[in-house]
Order: sequence, then structure tokens, then C-alpha cells
Amino acid sequence: MTTNAPAIATEPITDAEIFAAHEGGKLSVVSKMPLTSKRELSIAYTPGVAQVSRAIAADPGMHATHTWASRLVVVVSDGTAVLGLGDIGAAASLPVMEGKSALFREFGGLDSIPLVLDTTDVDEIVETLVRLRPSFGAVNLEDVSAPRCFELEERLIEALDCPVMHDDQHGTAVVVLAALTNAARVVDKSFDAMRVVISGAGAAGIAIAEALLSAGVGDIVLLDSKGILSKSRTDLSGVKAQYATITNHGNLEGGTREALAGADAFIGVSSSKVDESHLEGMNEGAIIFALSNPDPEVLPDVASRYAAVVATGRSDFPNQINNVLAFPGIFRGALDARARRITPAMKLAAAQAIADLAAENLAPDHIVPSPLDPRVADAVASAVHKAVVPDAG
Amino acid sequence: MTTNAPAIATEPITDAEIFAAHEGGKLSVVSKMPLTSKRELSIAYTPGVAQVSRAIAADPGMHATHTWASRLVVVVSDGTAVLGLGDIGAAASLPVMEGKSALFREFGGLDSIPLVLDTTDVDEIVETLVRLRPSFGAVNLEDVSAPRCFELEERLIEALDCPVMHDDQHGTAVVVLAALTNAARVVDKSFDAMRVVISGAGAAGIAIAEALLSAGVGDIVLLDSKGILSKSRTDLSGVKAQYATITNHGNLEGGTREALAGADAFIGVSSSKVDESHLEGMNEGAIIFALSNPDPEVLPDVASRYAAVVATGRSDFPNQINNVLAFPGIFRGALDARARRITPAMKLAAAQAIADLAAENLAPDHIVPSPLDPRVADAVASAVHKAVVPDAG
Repeated sequence: MTTNAPAIATEPITDAEIFAAHEGGKLSVVSKMPLTSKRELSIAYTPGVAQVSRAIAADPGMHATHTWASRLVVVVSDGTAVLGLGDIGAAASLPVMEGKSALFREFGGLDSIPLVLDTTDVDEIVETLVRLRPSFGAVNLEDVSAPRCFELEERLIEALDCPVMHDDQHGTAVVVLAALTNAARVVDKSFDAMRVVISGAGAAGIAIAEALLSAGVGDIVLLDSKGILSKSRTDLSGVKAQYATITNHGNLEGGTREALAGADAFIGVSSSKVDESHLEGMNEGAIIFALSNPDPEVLPDVASRYAAVVATGRSDFPNQINNVLAFPGIFRGALDARARRITPAMKLAAAQAIADLAAENLAPDHIVPSPLDPRVADAVASAVHKAVVPDAG
Repeated sequence: MTTNAPAIATEPITDAEIFAAHEGGKLSVVSKMPLTSKRELSIAYTPGVAQVSRAIAADPGMHATHTWASRLVVVVSDGTAVLGLGDIGAAASLPVMEGKSALFREFGGLDSIPLVLDTTDVDEIVETLVRLRPSFGAVNLEDVSAPRCFELEERLIEALDCPVMHDDQHGTAVVVLAALTNAARVVDKSFDAMRVVISGAGAAGIAIAEALLSAGVGDIVLLDSKGILSKSRTDLSGVKAQYATITNHGNLEGGTREALAGADAFIGVSSSKVDESHLEGMNEGAIIFALSNPDPEVLPDVASRYAAVVATGRSDFPNQINNVLAFPGIFRGALDARARRITPAMKLAAAQAIADLAAENLAPDHIVPSPLDPRVADAVASAVHKAVVPDAG
């Protein structure tokens, strides 16, 4: 068990260093062709460009091949649920969205621009992106608060004929599914025999529940800030009420202690701390993913006293569960295949590809590849591409 | 007189070359910092970026210094008046807008992205940009049809607290004013004694008239497809009706022939050809700017029989009047100064800076700098910056 290893020592990052790195922003737009001669100007701009515009007007399919739009992911946020900071607004969310766009470039080889919106109205956000439709090729929704995020994603998928994904939901769910797949191998349990507790019933928690159910996990118990989601709760509505009926087969009631008694896995995606004593009731060969950032629900040295496999969202512990393992490859695979939607099959294929890469050297402290592993995005993109059903995709 | 010089011989540009250069689009977004280590990820993305978002939430002014938005020009079009191709739609306009964004990078050192809109409704375009306001620092309107472009620009200037400029109007007007300033020096005429004929009363023609009037040109005669704009025309409305009252002091009526009789300068910004015989009536020391692209209203070898100074919009003749002389420097100067608006004084300063650069080697075939002269954008930006009135700017 190396999950007992102390945090890897690194040079501490200072605020001064962070602010210096962000000065003037983190992105830059460059021209792919030089523009230093009259000849180059005549090709890239007037009069040459008129040929290309005329060709697209005559054959709209050429918009996909002769502009940057079909490979451009817009990272869209209204700033309502930014990291752990909450509703800090569109302007303050922009550094996060710039970072996300930079990750699309570095890991996915895709162009990406942030579009932050000074409105939190679902209708208005949908309408804005519909109007901008010819400008981009895919939408990565980011840091939109629940439960609005569920409706917003659904509405955008209906309104736009291009890949749309709320990464806080599905990117997280894909990586968690990959990690749980390998953790289950390590502890030699099958999904259908497992009961998984998910702490947090927001964007990530609900999407994880959805992914694990469709992957065949036997039972799931969701917790929100008021406790276990159960059919006897009278305060639930919308997606939470829906999940209260399809999870928690044992009709458990109570809080974390009651949920964890006899559970096989704990997945934390809220900032609620877990009391060490609550972990005592978990089954043999337990799995703990404490994904809250930067402060996990329970620290690995404590968690590993009760679990055989421990993961966090942090880069300074083993088994870092990070969305960057999923979203660059998912979007690239979808765009490579010219898919109109990102389907459940494509997400499952992505999770399988991530799990397979780590399975080569499977160990309690190696259930997912490193976020910096350069093979990941290619493997995910290729798996996602293959999972696209032509026409139905 | 070197305006008689034949077109400069260059290797012909083939369609295959143009389409190959446009494949996959012309722009790319890159990260300004490397993202190859966990440490770099922790600075640019989580957890480091949270510090920057928190700081902007507490001090909104840091949005200008610690995101890319304040130096980002969005090139906005609805595709209604694309080059000489007309209303070909947003998708088909995108190659032109990508080219414009590339020019902002190459000549202005600014980041720029194209946003093409699948709506031609002025209210909807304004509303869309208002919602996206935290995403950018300035708006370059492009290829929007007249007379909607006048209302749209005015409405955007009111609605957004950042520089907004319809380049087809004001970029063109600034470069024409610069060229006319130097042409007037060559022929030794003062603006107040000149009568200038402008063929074309669309976006460019009206903006040129406005700029020349504010620069002190004595009289202007505007022509649209039906002839001279005069107070006796009963078919005029909006901005055309307005300009019919403030131009044409001599109450001329008729067409190009009547307009040019006794005129000092001709500026063509429509695709209407000019009959050679109409040029005979122009005054001694006449100036002809035949700016229609790619086919000038009159070719330089013909025009120079009747004029002392001839200019076109083409790179293969002397005196190329091209917006790229103006817009990169205007926007950079405005953004450097954090100006809220692009004022008439800033545009005049830009024209003066362009004229001054060519004045160093003033000649009939050298009234404007080369569009590739790397000094231009710096000189324009600096002049525009100085012309910003603090607070009122």
C-alpha cells in the first residue's frame, strides 16, 4: 500500500508566481500562415479569400473544411459555480475558462476560446449560442450551477447540431468510471455486486451516478447536504427526486455514517468532510475517492486505514482523478468523427480507454494514468471516434 | 508621374493555392505558458487559478490586467455585405473574418477572434454582444450591410463600454483622409477650397464624407446608384437624406458627369465604372482614388491622363489605399489607452499619423505608406493613444 505515501515534496507555488503567470491572460491567437508579403496577404485576405467565401456560400459543407470553426471548442460559462468559489460571475470566471482552453490546445490539439456570459438565464444562454452557431464546432459547458446545468445542457444539445458537454458532469463521470473500473479490478469485485456511496448530488454527483448505473453498478446511495437521497425525503424535486427513486435500493435514511455502513466505495464530490469513524463500517476491500479540491473529504493517510484503494483530485497524491484525462480526447474524438452528439456509448468508450491505459501496470496506487501521460488524449479520441454511430452519432 | 507604371508582375495566385492555404482555417489558439508539468498545471489551472478568479471577484479592475479579454478584439459580422459578394451569410463570411483576426495579430500585435452571427436583426446582435461583454475588449464590426450598419454601430457604442468600430466605415475613411491629405499637398490645394466627389453612399462613402467634412473639405458631392444626392431627390431617407442636406452646396443634379465637372477629387467606393469622358471636366491637378476591388472604377493608366495623383485599393498598383494601414493601430492605441470609445479626434490622429509617415518621401506615387511598412501600426497606435481624452475618451 503506497497510498500511505506522504505528499510528494514540490517547491511551493507562491501567489506572486500565480499572478505573474496570469498577467495579460494565458491565451494568444496566432495566424497559421505568414502575412509578411503582398502575395501572402492576397491569398489569406483580399482578393483571394473571396474565392473561399464564394465556395462556402455555394457548398455549405466547405465551412467545415475551410474555416477553423469545425475544430473550435468554445468553453462557455456564466460564472455561477466556479471551482469551489461559487457564483463569482462571468468576469471572474474567465481565468478558469482560459485555462481550460489552454488545456484543449495542449492535451487535445484543438483550438478553443472562452466565452463567458453576463447572463444566468438558460433561455438567453441557449439563444446566444444558437446565434453564434457558425462560429464554432463544439461547446464545453463549464462551472454552471446545478440544477440549471442539467436543463442548460439538455437544451443546448437539442438546439445545436454539434457536440455539447458539461464537463463538470460528464468529464468527471468518465474519469471516475475509469478509476472505479480499475479499482474494482484491484479489489476483485464486480460492479453488479457493489454498493457505491456518492457524497454530493450536484452536477458531478448526479452525472457519476448516471454513468455508474449505466455501467452496471449494483446500487448507489447519493448524499446531499441534508443526508441520504431516499424516497421518504419530502424536500426533493427535479433530478434529485428522480435519482431518489432509481438509487438506494435498501431505502437507507440518515447521513454519511448510515450510507457508508456496508458500502464498497465512497466517492466524494462535495466539500463535506467525512468523519473517520464513518469509514469504519465500510466493507473489506473498500474504495475511497475523495475528490474535493484542494481539500479532500478525507486525507489519503486516514482513508487508507479503511480502504484498499484511495484516490483524490490532487496532483501531490497518487491516483489523481482529473478531468483533463477525459475532455480533450472526448471532444477531439467527437470532432474527428464529425459527431453531432456526445452519446453515452462515446463516454463509456472514453472511460474504458482511460482504464485500459492504467491497467497495463495496475496497482492500488496506479488505477488511472497520469494527467500528463501524452498517450491518453490520443487513446480516448480514438476510442470515442470508434464509438460514434454514423448518422445516429 | 509613375502612376502610369504597369501592374507589378507577380507570380499568379492559383485557386488551388488559395484553397490549400485556407484548409482547416487560418487561426490557431495557443497557450502563452507551457503546460507540461504538474507544477505548471497547478499555476495555470487548479488550484492556482482560483487565486486569480477570487482576486477579480474582489477587484473587478483585475479582469483587465489578468485575463486576455482587455486586449481581445472580436471581429463581428452577420455576413450581409461580404467583400463584393453581398449577403452570403455568416458561415460563408467566416474566412474573411479569420483573415481580419490574423491581420490584427500580425500588424497590431493584438489577439482577435471572429464571431459570426446567424442573425441579421440589429437588436439581437446588440443583445448578443452585451451578453458576451466580459469575454472581449473591443468590437471590430465587419461587412454589415448599409444602412443597418449605421444603426448597429451606434447602438453598440451606446450599449458597450469599450471601443467599437465598423471598419468598412471608419477604417476606410481614416486611410482615405490620410491619402487625400498628402494628395492635396502634392497638388498644392487646401482642403477648404476643394470639392470632392464620392461615388458610393454606403458604409464607406458616408463615413468618408463625414471624415472629410470634419477635416475641413470645402464641399462634397455624394453619388449613389441613382445619381447625385441632392435636396431635390425625393427617394432619400435616413443617413442619405441627412447627407443630401449637408453636402452638395451647389445643388448639383445628375450623374457622374455632372458631379465631376469642376471637381478636384474623385473617390470611388462603389463598383460603378466611371466613363473616361466624365473625367475630362475635372479641375487641373485632379486627384482620383478608384478604390473598388478587385476592379477599380477606372484603371490607373486611364485615370492618370486626367489626374495628377491616382490611387487604388490594389497591391499591384502604386498608392494602395488599404484599411490595414488603420485598424490595427487604431484598436491598439484605443486599448493601450483603455479608451471607452473611438472618438473623431482619435480617427483624425490616426489619419494624420499615416499621412505623416508617407510625407517623408512625398510624391504623386507615394501618398500613403506601404501596407507592409512595419512602422505604421506603432505610429498610428501612439497617435491614437495621445488623442484619447482621459475620462471623456
